[in-house]
Amino acid sequence: MEIREIGEKECQAVLQGASIGRLGCALDNQPYVVPVYFAYEADYVYLFSTLGQKIEWMRANPKVCLQADEIKNQLQWVSVIANGRYEELPTPQYEAELAHARVLLQKRHSWWLNAMAERRKQVPDELIAPLFFRIHIESMTGLAAVGEGEMTSPPRK
Amino acid sequence: MEIREIGEKECQAVLQGASIGRLGCALDNQPYVVPVYFAYEADYVYLFSTLGQKIEWMRANPKVCLQADEIKNQLQWVSVIANGRYEELPTPQYEAELAHARVLLQKRHSWWLNAMAERRKQVPDELIAPLFFRIHIESMTGLAAVGEGEMTSPPRK
Repeated sequence: MEIREIGEKECQAVLQGASIGRLGCALDNQPYVVPVYFAYEADYVYLFSTLGQKIEWMRANPKVCLQADEIKNQLQWVSVIANGRYEELPTPQYEAELAHARVLLQKRHSWWLNAMAERRKQVPDELIAPLFFRIHIESMTGLAAVGEGEMTSPPRK
Repeated sequence: MEIREIGEKECQAVLQGASIGRLGCALDNQPYVVPVYFAYEADYVYLFSTLGQKIEWMRANPKVCLQADEIKNQLQWVSVIANGRYEELPTPQYEAELAHARVLLQKRHSWWLNAMAERRKQVPDELIAPLFFRIHIESMTGLAAVGEGEMTSPPRK
Protein backbone atom coordinates (compact mmCIF):
# COMPACT_ATOMS: atom_id res chain seq x y z
CA MET A 1 0.00 0.00 0.00
CA GLU A 2 1.25 3.41 -0.92
CA ILE A 3 0.17 6.53 0.94
CA ARG A 4 0.72 9.85 -0.76
CA GLU A 5 -0.16 13.47 -0.20
CA ILE A 6 -2.76 14.83 -2.58
CA GLY A 7 -2.91 18.30 -4.07
CA GLU A 8 -5.47 21.05 -3.64
CA LYS A 9 -7.57 20.03 -6.66
CA GLU A 10 -7.92 16.48 -5.34
CA CYS A 11 -8.78 17.81 -1.88
CA GLN A 12 -11.48 19.98 -3.43
CA ALA A 13 -12.90 16.98 -5.30
CA VAL A 14 -13.20 15.03 -2.03
CA LEU A 15 -15.01 17.92 -0.33
CA GLN A 16 -17.33 18.29 -3.33
CA GLY A 17 -18.15 14.58 -3.36
CA ALA A 18 -18.55 14.09 0.36
CA SER A 19 -21.72 14.91 2.21
CA ILE A 20 -20.87 13.87 5.76
CA GLY A 21 -17.82 15.25 7.50
CA ARG A 22 -16.47 15.55 11.01
CA LEU A 23 -16.15 19.02 12.43
CA GLY A 24 -13.45 19.64 15.01
CA CYS A 25 -13.40 22.56 17.40
CA ALA A 26 -11.46 23.19 20.61
CA LEU A 27 -11.78 25.10 23.86
CA ASP A 28 -8.98 25.37 26.42
CA ASN A 29 -7.14 22.91 24.20
CA GLN A 30 -9.83 20.23 24.66
CA PRO A 31 -10.87 19.03 21.19
CA TYR A 32 -14.48 18.18 20.32
CA VAL A 33 -15.56 16.32 17.18
CA VAL A 34 -19.05 15.89 15.76
CA PRO A 35 -20.45 14.48 12.51
CA VAL A 36 -21.93 17.18 10.27
CA TYR A 37 -23.64 17.56 6.93
CA PHE A 38 -22.06 20.21 4.75
CA ALA A 39 -21.80 21.75 1.30
CA TYR A 40 -18.47 22.91 -0.09
CA GLU A 41 -18.06 25.82 -2.49
CA ALA A 42 -14.86 27.65 -3.39
CA ASP A 43 -13.17 28.85 -0.19
CA TYR A 44 -16.08 28.00 2.11
CA VAL A 45 -17.77 25.06 3.75
CA TYR A 46 -21.42 25.74 4.59
CA LEU A 47 -23.05 23.99 7.53
CA PHE A 48 -25.99 24.16 9.86
CA SER A 49 -26.63 23.03 13.38
CA THR A 50 -28.88 23.56 16.34
CA LEU A 51 -27.46 25.61 19.18
CA GLY A 52 -25.26 23.54 21.44
CA GLN A 53 -21.76 22.88 22.66
CA LYS A 54 -20.06 23.14 19.27
CA ILE A 55 -21.64 26.52 18.47
CA GLU A 56 -20.71 27.86 21.89
CA TRP A 57 -17.16 26.60 21.53
CA MET A 58 -16.74 27.98 17.99
CA ARG A 59 -18.03 31.37 19.12
CA ALA A 60 -15.36 31.35 21.85
CA ASN A 61 -12.63 29.99 19.56
CA PRO A 62 -13.22 30.24 15.80
CA LYS A 63 -10.27 27.98 14.85
CA VAL A 64 -11.92 24.87 13.41
CA CYS A 65 -11.26 22.02 11.04
CA LEU A 66 -13.39 19.78 8.86
CA GLN A 67 -12.31 16.25 8.06
CA ALA A 68 -13.92 14.32 5.20
CA ASP A 69 -13.04 11.03 3.60
CA GLU A 70 -13.97 8.44 1.00
CA ILE A 71 -13.21 4.93 2.16
CA LYS A 72 -13.65 2.46 -0.69
CA ASN A 73 -11.98 -0.32 1.21
CA GLN A 74 -9.18 -0.86 3.69
CA LEU A 75 -6.42 -0.19 1.19
CA GLN A 76 -8.10 2.43 -0.96
CA TRP A 77 -9.12 5.59 0.78
CA VAL A 78 -8.65 9.31 0.73
CA SER A 79 -8.92 11.72 3.66
CA VAL A 80 -8.92 15.50 3.61
CA ILE A 81 -8.63 18.03 6.40
CA ALA A 82 -9.58 21.67 5.88
CA ASN A 83 -8.48 24.19 8.48
CA GLY A 84 -10.29 27.46 8.75
CA ARG A 85 -12.27 29.93 10.77
CA TYR A 86 -15.86 29.73 11.98
CA GLU A 87 -18.09 32.48 10.61
CA GLU A 88 -21.64 32.83 11.82
CA LEU A 89 -24.10 34.29 9.31
CA PRO A 90 -26.33 36.65 11.30
CA THR A 91 -28.92 38.80 9.58
CA PRO A 92 -29.14 41.49 8.35
CA GLN A 93 -25.37 41.88 7.79
CA TYR A 94 -24.99 38.49 6.11
CA GLU A 95 -28.40 38.32 4.40
CA ALA A 96 -26.96 37.38 1.00
CA GLU A 97 -24.49 34.80 2.37
CA LEU A 98 -27.21 33.27 4.51
CA ALA A 99 -29.58 32.93 1.55
CA HIS A 100 -26.76 31.35 -0.45
CA ALA A 101 -25.99 28.89 2.37
CA ARG A 102 -29.66 27.90 2.57
CA VAL A 103 -29.85 27.23 -1.17
CA LEU A 104 -26.65 25.17 -1.18
CA LEU A 105 -27.66 23.13 1.84
CA GLN A 106 -31.28 22.69 0.74
CA LYS A 107 -30.02 21.04 -2.45
CA ARG A 108 -28.36 18.24 -0.56
CA HIS A 109 -29.84 18.20 2.89
CA SER A 110 -33.49 19.25 2.54
CA TRP A 111 -34.57 15.99 4.26
CA TRP A 112 -32.69 17.05 7.37
CA LEU A 113 -33.86 20.66 7.34
CA ASN A 114 -37.41 19.35 6.90
CA ALA A 115 -36.96 17.00 9.84
CA MET A 116 -35.75 19.92 11.96
CA ALA A 117 -38.75 22.00 10.85
CA GLU A 118 -41.09 19.14 11.76
CA ARG A 119 -39.50 18.93 15.16
CA ARG A 120 -39.92 22.66 15.71
CA LYS A 121 -43.65 22.39 15.05
CA GLN A 122 -43.88 19.96 17.94
CA VAL A 123 -41.39 21.71 20.22
CA PRO A 124 -41.35 25.43 19.48
CA ASP A 125 -37.97 26.16 20.95
CA GLU A 126 -35.24 28.53 19.81
CA LEU A 127 -32.68 25.92 20.77
CA ILE A 128 -33.71 23.61 17.94
CA ALA A 129 -33.91 26.26 15.20
CA PRO A 130 -31.26 25.58 12.54
CA LEU A 131 -28.32 27.96 12.74
CA PHE A 132 -26.43 28.40 9.47
CA PHE A 133 -22.71 29.06 9.51
CA ARG A 134 -19.66 28.61 7.35
CA ILE A 135 -15.97 27.86 7.62
CA HIS A 136 -13.62 30.15 5.76
CA ILE A 137 -10.99 27.65 4.60
CA GLU A 138 -7.39 28.75 5.13
CA SER A 139 -5.56 25.55 4.25
CA MET A 140 -6.27 22.03 3.03
CA THR A 141 -4.24 18.85 3.12
CA GLY A 142 -5.07 15.32 2.11
CA LEU A 143 -3.72 11.80 2.04
CA ALA A 144 -4.63 9.00 -0.35
CA ALA A 145 -3.89 5.30 -0.04
CA VAL A 146 -3.59 3.17 -3.12
CA GLY A 147 -3.67 -0.55 -2.36
CA GLU A 148 -1.45 -3.05 -4.10
CA GLY A 149 -1.80 -6.80 -4.32
CA GLU A 150 -4.79 -8.59 -2.93
CA MET A 151 -7.82 -6.62 -1.86
CA THR A 152 -9.48 -7.40 1.40
CA SER A 153 -13.09 -7.01 2.47
CA PRO A 154 -14.50 -3.53 3.02
CA PRO A 155 -13.88 -2.05 6.45
CA ARG A 156 -16.59 -2.13 9.08
CA LYS A 157 -17.94 1.35 9.45
CA MET B 1 -37.27 12.43 14.06
CA GLU B 2 -36.41 12.25 17.72
CA ILE B 3 -32.90 12.90 19.01
CA ARG B 4 -32.07 11.70 22.47
CA GLU B 5 -29.04 11.37 24.69
CA ILE B 6 -27.87 7.83 25.24
CA GLY B 7 -26.41 6.36 28.41
CA GLU B 8 -22.97 4.96 29.12
CA LYS B 9 -23.89 1.37 28.26
CA GLU B 10 -25.17 2.39 24.84
CA CYS B 11 -22.06 4.51 24.27
CA GLN B 12 -19.90 1.50 25.12
CA ALA B 13 -21.85 -0.66 22.66
CA VAL B 14 -21.18 1.85 19.86
CA LEU B 15 -17.44 1.90 20.64
CA GLN B 16 -17.37 -1.90 20.76
CA GLY B 17 -19.15 -2.21 17.42
CA ALA B 18 -17.28 0.51 15.56
CA SER B 19 -13.93 -0.02 13.98
CA ILE B 20 -13.25 3.36 12.38
CA GLY B 21 -13.35 6.53 14.45
CA ARG B 22 -12.18 10.10 14.18
CA LEU B 23 -9.52 11.19 16.61
CA GLY B 24 -9.44 14.85 17.59
CA CYS B 25 -6.44 16.58 19.13
CA ALA B 26 -5.57 20.25 19.53
CA LEU B 27 -2.54 22.50 19.79
CA ASP B 28 -2.74 26.21 20.56
CA ASN B 29 -6.50 25.75 20.33
CA GLN B 30 -6.28 24.64 16.68
CA PRO B 31 -8.19 21.33 16.37
CA TYR B 32 -6.97 18.49 14.14
CA VAL B 33 -9.09 15.47 13.17
CA VAL B 34 -7.97 12.24 11.53
CA PRO B 35 -9.68 8.91 10.79
CA VAL B 36 -8.29 6.08 12.91
CA TYR B 37 -8.74 2.36 13.47
CA PHE B 38 -9.19 1.45 17.10
CA ALA B 39 -10.18 -1.20 19.62
CA TYR B 40 -12.17 -0.35 22.72
CA GLU B 41 -11.88 -2.14 26.03
CA ALA B 42 -13.14 -1.02 29.44
CA ASP B 43 -11.78 2.47 30.14
CA TYR B 44 -9.38 2.55 27.20
CA VAL B 45 -9.32 2.98 23.46
CA TYR B 46 -6.27 1.37 21.84
CA LEU B 47 -4.86 2.79 18.63
CA PHE B 48 -1.77 2.83 16.49
CA SER B 49 -0.27 5.28 14.06
CA THR B 50 2.93 6.20 12.33
CA LEU B 51 4.80 9.17 13.73
CA GLY B 52 3.36 12.42 12.45
CA GLN B 53 1.48 15.58 13.31
CA LYS B 54 -1.13 13.93 15.54
CA ILE B 55 1.47 12.12 17.67
CA GLU B 56 3.52 15.31 18.03
CA TRP B 57 0.41 17.27 19.00
CA MET B 58 -0.82 14.66 21.49
CA ARG B 59 2.62 14.54 23.12
CA ALA B 60 2.41 18.32 23.55
CA ASN B 61 -1.25 18.29 24.65
CA PRO B 62 -2.69 14.94 25.83
CA LYS B 63 -6.33 16.14 25.87
CA VAL B 64 -7.98 14.20 23.06
CA CYS B 65 -11.35 12.91 21.94
CA LEU B 66 -12.55 10.03 19.83
CA GLN B 67 -15.78 10.27 17.86
CA ALA B 68 -17.46 7.15 16.48
CA ASP B 69 -20.83 6.62 14.89
CA GLU B 70 -23.19 4.16 13.26
CA ILE B 71 -25.21 5.75 10.50
CA LYS B 72 -27.93 3.38 9.29
CA ASN B 73 -29.66 6.07 7.29
CA GLN B 74 -30.39 9.77 7.47
CA LEU B 75 -32.92 9.44 10.25
CA GLN B 76 -31.41 6.57 12.19
CA TRP B 77 -27.96 7.12 13.56
CA VAL B 78 -26.01 7.16 16.76
CA SER B 79 -22.86 9.16 17.52
CA VAL B 80 -20.56 8.89 20.52
CA ILE B 81 -17.75 11.10 21.72
CA ALA B 82 -15.23 9.89 24.28
CA ASN B 83 -13.00 12.46 25.96
CA GLY B 84 -9.77 11.37 27.52
CA ARG B 85 -6.03 11.60 27.75
CA TYR B 86 -3.38 10.36 25.36
CA GLU B 87 -1.06 7.75 26.83
CA GLU B 88 1.91 6.50 24.90
CA LEU B 89 2.99 2.93 25.62
CA PRO B 90 6.79 2.98 25.68
CA THR B 91 8.79 -0.10 26.64
CA PRO B 92 9.91 -1.36 29.06
CA GLN B 93 7.59 0.48 31.50
CA TYR B 94 4.44 -0.40 29.56
CA GLU B 95 5.52 -3.81 28.24
CA ALA B 96 2.32 -5.55 29.40
CA GLU B 97 -0.03 -2.81 28.18
CA LEU B 98 1.77 -2.68 24.84
CA ALA B 99 1.48 -6.44 24.35
CA HIS B 100 -2.21 -6.20 25.22
CA ALA B 101 -2.73 -3.37 22.74
CA ARG B 102 -1.02 -5.37 20.00
CA VAL B 103 -3.24 -8.41 20.63
CA LEU B 104 -6.43 -6.34 20.65
CA LEU B 105 -5.52 -4.43 17.50
CA GLN B 106 -4.16 -7.49 15.67
CA LYS B 107 -7.57 -9.16 16.10
CA ARG B 108 -9.32 -6.48 14.10
CA HIS B 109 -6.66 -4.66 12.14
CA SER B 110 -4.02 -7.24 11.22
CA TRP B 111 -4.48 -6.35 7.51
CA TRP B 112 -3.37 -2.80 8.25
CA LEU B 113 -0.47 -3.76 10.52
CA ASN B 114 0.63 -6.20 7.80
CA ALA B 115 0.43 -3.45 5.18
CA MET B 116 2.58 -1.23 7.41
CA ALA B 117 5.09 -4.06 7.87
CA GLU B 118 5.23 -4.59 4.10
CA ARG B 119 5.89 -0.93 3.60
CA ARG B 120 8.70 -1.00 6.15
CA LYS B 121 10.42 -3.79 4.24
CA GLN B 122 10.56 -1.50 1.24
CA VAL B 123 11.33 1.71 3.12
CA PRO B 124 13.17 0.92 6.34
CA ASP B 125 12.35 4.08 8.16
CA GLU B 126 11.57 4.71 11.81
CA LEU B 127 8.94 7.20 10.74
CA ILE B 128 6.68 4.50 9.37
CA ALA B 129 7.02 2.06 12.27
CA PRO B 130 3.64 1.63 13.99
CA LEU B 131 3.43 3.43 17.29
CA PHE B 132 0.88 1.99 19.73
CA PHE B 133 -0.94 4.26 22.14
CA ARG B 134 -4.15 4.44 24.08
CA ILE B 135 -6.68 6.96 25.29
CA HIS B 136 -7.68 6.79 28.93
CA ILE B 137 -11.38 7.65 28.69
CA GLU B 138 -12.59 10.20 31.24
CA SER B 139 -16.10 10.83 29.95
CA MET B 140 -18.45 9.66 27.23
CA THR B 141 -21.57 11.16 25.72
CA GLY B 142 -23.76 10.07 22.87
CA LEU B 143 -26.76 11.06 20.79
CA ALA B 144 -29.16 8.80 18.92
CA ALA B 145 -31.72 9.71 16.29
CA VAL B 146 -34.78 7.60 15.80
CA GLY B 147 -36.62 8.37 12.57
CA GLU B 148 -40.38 8.55 12.36
CA GLY B 149 -42.58 8.42 9.32
CA GLU B 150 -41.17 7.78 5.87
CA MET B 151 -37.61 6.64 5.48
CA THR B 152 -35.41 8.24 2.89
CA SER B 153 -32.46 6.86 0.98
CA PRO B 154 -29.19 6.23 2.84
CA PRO B 155 -26.87 9.20 3.12
CA ARG B 156 -23.94 9.58 0.77
CA LYS B 157 -20.78 8.78 2.67
